[in-house]
Amino acid sequence: MRIGVLTGGGDCPGLNAVIRGIVRKGTQLYDYDFLGFRDGWRGPLEAATTPLGIPEVRGILPLGGTILGSSRTNPLKVVDGIRRVKENLDKYEVDALIAIGGEDTLGVAATLHEHGVNVVGVPKTIDNDLNATDYTFGFDTAVNIATEAIDRLHTTAESHKRVLVIEVMGRHAGWIALHSGIAGGANVILIPEQRFDMDRVCAWVEQRFRINYAPIVVVAEGAMPLEGQMMVKDDSRDAFGHVRLAGIGEWLAHEIEARTGKEARTTVLGHIQRGGTPSAFDRWLATRFGLHAVDAVHDEDFGTMVALRGTDIVRVPLAEATVRIKTVDPALYAEFDVFFG
Amino acid sequence: MRIGVLTGGGDCPGLNAVIRGIVRKGTQLYDYDFLGFRDGWRGPLEAATTPLGIPEVRGILPLGGTILGSSRTNPLKVVDGIRRVKENLDKYEVDALIAIGGEDTLGVAATLHEHGVNVVGVPKTIDNDLNATDYTFGFDTAVNIATEAIDRLHTTAESHKRVLVIEVMGRHAGWIALHSGIAGGANVILIPEQRFDMDRVCAWVEQRFRINYAPIVVVAEGAMPLEGQMMVKDDSRDAFGHVRLAGIGEWLAHEIEARTGKEARTTVLGHIQRGGTPSAFDRWLATRFGLHAVDAVHDEDFGTMVALRGTDIVRVPLAEATVRIKTVDPALYAEFDVFFG
Amino acid sequence: MRIGVLTGGGDCPGLNAVIRGIVRKGTQLYDYDFLGFRDGWRGPLEAATTPLGIPEVRGILPLGGTILGSSRTNPLKVVDGIRRVKENLDKYEVDALIAIGGEDTLGVAATLHEHGVNVVGVPKTIDNDLNATDYTFGFDTAVNIATEAIDRLHTTAESHKRVLVIEVMGRHAGWIALHSGIAGGANVILIPEQRFDMDRVCAWVEQRFRINYAPIVVVAEGAMPLEGQMMVKDDSRDAFGHVRLAGIGEWLAHEIEARTGKEARTTVLGHIQRGGTPSAFDRWLATRFGLHAVDAVHDEDFGTMVALRGTDIVRVPLAEATVRIKTVDPALYAEFDVFFG
Amino acid sequence: MRIGVLTGGGDCPGLNAVIRGIVRKGTQLYDYDFLGFRDGWRGPLEAATTPLGIPEVRGILPLGGTILGSSRTNPLKVVDGIRRVKENLDKYEVDALIAIGGEDTLGVAATLHEHGVNVVGVPKTIDNDLNATDYTFGFDTAVNIATEAIDRLHTTAESHKRVLVIEVMGRHAGWIALHSGIAGGANVILIPEQRFDMDRVCAWVEQRFRINYAPIVVVAEGAMPLEGQMMVKDDSRDAFGHVRLAGIGEWLAHEIEARTGKEARTTVLGHIQRGGTPSAFDRWLATRFGLHAVDAVHDEDFGTMVALRGTDIVRVPLAEATVRIKTVDPALYAEFDVFFG
Repeated sequence: MRIGVLTGGGDCPGLNAVIRGIVRKGTQLYDYDFLGFRDGWRGPLEAATTPLGIPEVRGILPLGGTILGSSRTNPLKVVDGIRRVKENLDKYEVDALIAIGGEDTLGVAATLHEHGVNVVGVPKTIDNDLNATDYTFGFDTAVNIATEAIDRLHTTAESHKRVLVIEVMGRHAGWIALHSGIAGGANVILIPEQRFDMDRVCAWVEQRFRINYAPIVVVAEGAMPLEGQMMVKDDSRDAFGHVRLAGIGEWLAHEIEARTGKEARTTVLGHIQRGGTPSAFDRWLATRFGLHAVDAVHDEDFGTMVALRGTDIVRVPLAEATVRIKTVDPALYAEFDVFFG
Repeated sequence: MRIGVLTGGGDCPGLNAVIRGIVRKGTQLYDYDFLGFRDGWRGPLEAATTPLGIPEVRGILPLGGTILGSSRTNPLKVVDGIRRVKENLDKYEVDALIAIGGEDTLGVAATLHEHGVNVVGVPKTIDNDLNATDYTFGFDTAVNIATEAIDRLHTTAESHKRVLVIEVMGRHAGWIALHSGIAGGANVILIPEQRFDMDRVCAWVEQRFRINYAPIVVVAEGAMPLEGQMMVKDDSRDAFGHVRLAGIGEWLAHEIEARTGKEARTTVLGHIQRGGTPSAFDRWLATRFGLHAVDAVHDEDFGTMVALRGTDIVRVPLAEATVRIKTVDPALYAEFDVFFG
Repeated sequence: MRIGVLTGGGDCPGLNAVIRGIVRKGTQLYDYDFLGFRDGWRGPLEAATTPLGIPEVRGILPLGGTILGSSRTNPLKVVDGIRRVKENLDKYEVDALIAIGGEDTLGVAATLHEHGVNVVGVPKTIDNDLNATDYTFGFDTAVNIATEAIDRLHTTAESHKRVLVIEVMGRHAGWIALHSGIAGGANVILIPEQRFDMDRVCAWVEQRFRINYAPIVVVAEGAMPLEGQMMVKDDSRDAFGHVRLAGIGEWLAHEIEARTGKEARTTVLGHIQRGGTPSAFDRWLATRFGLHAVDAVHDEDFGTMVALRGTDIVRVPLAEATVRIKTVDPALYAEFDVFFG
Repeated sequence: MRIGVLTGGGDCPGLNAVIRGIVRKGTQLYDYDFLGFRDGWRGPLEAATTPLGIPEVRGILPLGGTILGSSRTNPLKVVDGIRRVKENLDKYEVDALIAIGGEDTLGVAATLHEHGVNVVGVPKTIDNDLNATDYTFGFDTAVNIATEAIDRLHTTAESHKRVLVIEVMGRHAGWIALHSGIAGGANVILIPEQRFDMDRVCAWVEQRFRINYAPIVVVAEGAMPLEGQMMVKDDSRDAFGHVRLAGIGEWLAHEIEARTGKEARTTVLGHIQRGGTPSAFDRWLATRFGLHAVDAVHDEDFGTMVALRGTDIVRVPLAEATVRIKTVDPALYAEFDVFFG
């Protein structure tokens, strides 16, 4: 048996741990051969391969990134994409394929499975917004990084009596903002799931100063104020003449300054949330995903993906992964109201 | 309503986060008063109290230890203990008690509940060995600390071509050893649940050297070799004349040296695994436990404790917490066989 | 003897370690009394004081911020400022004053010394730009934080084949950018001391992609391109209508995208560089500064400040601290040319 | 020109940064070829070589260990060792050799230089005990690791009211113990340079409990009590029958328990202090050492080694490195008396 492996979509700590788990168990227990496809779906589409065996996975457990490379190439959007992928799988005598990736990558996997490809999926999203699994690897690392940053902001907020805004990842789901904000003791947490009211934000900010502290505001990159609270000029060019929109973090800091008269500063964590060595939790989860994905291949349980339920790794239909995005439940968000302000 | 709060047993990162969650929600949402009892059950037993309100819980979220102190005092083992506890609760007009602790602390809580005390429990064990909950706070922090230590040992093991043994916590359950060993890429992981065979350990060690690497051995403090493999002298005094037993980590290093002729060195992490600032996961979990414990009081759902199931916080009977210890399932342990040697 | 202590200027990890060193040695060895002045020079100016003794300095060694608070209040810019400060020092029977701060704070100290106040200085600047001392505390912490961030960016830069720009502190001196850039293995480092040429920056960026890697660009907040390379529109309002200038990091990312066609993303570390727990080096240096500052008081060596020379703590005239800013020597900067691109 | 490079002695974070600095500058600026010798002096002795060029040094900056391997092989103790080394250098047409290592490694280098070999040295000792340089790389990393461990012990010491002993590296010099002990706020610091008095240690321990805190004791592995205070049994076998001496940390914990009646626990950091990723300071220093070592070769300034003086890298005769070990000055140690107890 020869198994192909690919990683697609955005960077996520733990990808290498998954690959290592797959290769170690597949080689040692099931005597499989492995073939690496480069740069996500570009690999099988363009026959871009790389050797993948025990030597290639040595020492990669703690490393960020992916030894297989990644891309957002989508064979479904390429003329004859599915046929070319199938031809290349045949050409390299690949019996089954393990695809590690998010909604898009797994969506392609689901379609290929309908076209007869033996495929098993491993879910990956730094944003933790996949409905079919309790957690995805990479998320815990991102939350730890954001939490450490918030920890560091506290003393400075106090010393300077400034509002400190920190923008974290999360275009459609506020999980990183919520978890790191609660873990870091933030005073305001703004998520994409619920448009925020600048009046309320400023009330929290002022309440915090009243008791002689300074507020930390965590904002997900996809969070937005209520309709009408954000005035965008017709001329959306910045001071240097480039067409651009400032991030929500910067906008928020300016708006808070303008409304409350308090100085505000912004930190934009950006890509440091999705790079570097994974946390212990993410290495554990990613390793187990890898071990169980190769078991699914062995069981010929194709068209499924591995998922975490409680402390168990289970299998769910690949289609499930892409059905519904997991966003922050308003009831969960409301649990933390007592920490705001 | 006045609510008493106490923390019992060993130190565990996240205790302060629980206390803060309880006090913030209880005060702001339910308008409760709080009273802190000092040093676990010694507090209500000896009427040792301390003020507990919003000011006392400011800034404690990231701090290790417990602002309420802890002890292993057990009122069930004290003459008239239960009566004295009840008298003191009456004296301070405490309507309900939230007890944060492990098997012993919650065992007392269960007994007191049978004697009519309104008590809610919050489970706490660094070893993660409580059956009623998926995870306990403090465990993730300990695993991260042990994993970082293992990470650092790898390069040195290689450079020195030495066996490096690291002893981690876990008297009865091997969760910390297993999680940190897998996350750290250890070559041998030894847990209390299964007596290990020195022949097999040495075979793994030698296999590792054969491919020109050096082995990392993670051993839980409670792990033991097969019967007859550990020779203990009649005279159990150490070289300095003190009565003592060396830890299993040191014993293992000496035994591996003696059997394989390879140099071996030991690291004993000890109490650094249970101190210091909690990981983001532990702060999140501990905070949620605190919020839900005070909800249980509000619902007058006494005799219960909060627990994690998947991503939900649920309530289970206090008795359940002490019924059965959660040890590492042999099937789970066997999943990782492919990484050994 | 009663000694006043104050901390002025921006936040800096290690301030509390200095205070603790002063109070521990002053109290235990010299039997001094201490009085804390709040919020820098605002303290003696407005008679804002706080108790300062052994109990107040317990546990503060690892904490960021300053227990005395800080501000940028300058008594030299206040009517009758010097007279009011001297009156308050007399009123509280303060025999000598230890001022911990940067150029501005120590400039006031120097002037007060000329007016007969017994003052000793401790230099503080996160930017490490004081000429009279090899290093200032806080700097090592900031460099470590920035380096860890750069470490995390590497894998993501590769996986995404993106240019990653990281903006670090340093308005007038590029020390943080240079040290963290070299320690983090950056491919371009831009400092305020030398205007950069966008053509050269883009050449480095493209060179990096040619060998199939992705570039990390570290830029100090005060760095600027060559005259004429930055076009600023007359209308310096941002897309939301606020008057503002985007930071240099964001500008750079947009400019690189525009010129090279490669995607670029920005991380702005902001205040997380100056908050939180100090590194071991900074705690050691800050503690020694505190111990030696109180020795200077004991020796009545007023008008001096402590400074690091090699591994020794020496005393230099206060005036020296403010004479000349220590910027990155072009020769030192040129040493690292081989790492660019 | 072809330059040989080797790393000898114990593991030390920063070795790879030195190698990278040498190769990058040597290749790009001076157009040198490089040859790696494997495992310290074993390399030139046994003609064990490995390719060394720009591709080999990619990505190694943050990695612990050494890509060249290390050993304690000493050609001066091998029959015909010097002749064999010289023959192999000739055979591989090596024009100059850069030796990175401690006292022993550089001692060999000095002797070889006397025998006409073109050699430049780079000093390396995790213990920071080389007299010729202000600091050596690796030391700052070790101190940070030990300090973080001490930080974590504090809360647990308090909660458990236990004495916590932590044993750190330092056979002959107490630099790591002193720096980490001061940075971590330890209550007792014991170094090899000065035999400690158990009576005084116990007095400090008891003083700490009197004010209701719990003591942290940092002890260097080479520290010893006063003559006569350590009773060693004739029979120096441990409880398991192996010949061994317990480490000083364990001995100390038992002795404190026996004398004061307080519970004591030990952490032995061991090799985690010398492995893993280097701190920013160590990467900066190691990189600069590498750059300057290759400059020394270019200047044909053989028989020298690079050294740190203040913020400058200078060259000193190789012989100087081995003349005198740098131990903790009693006056420096005494500076910190005010923190003990």
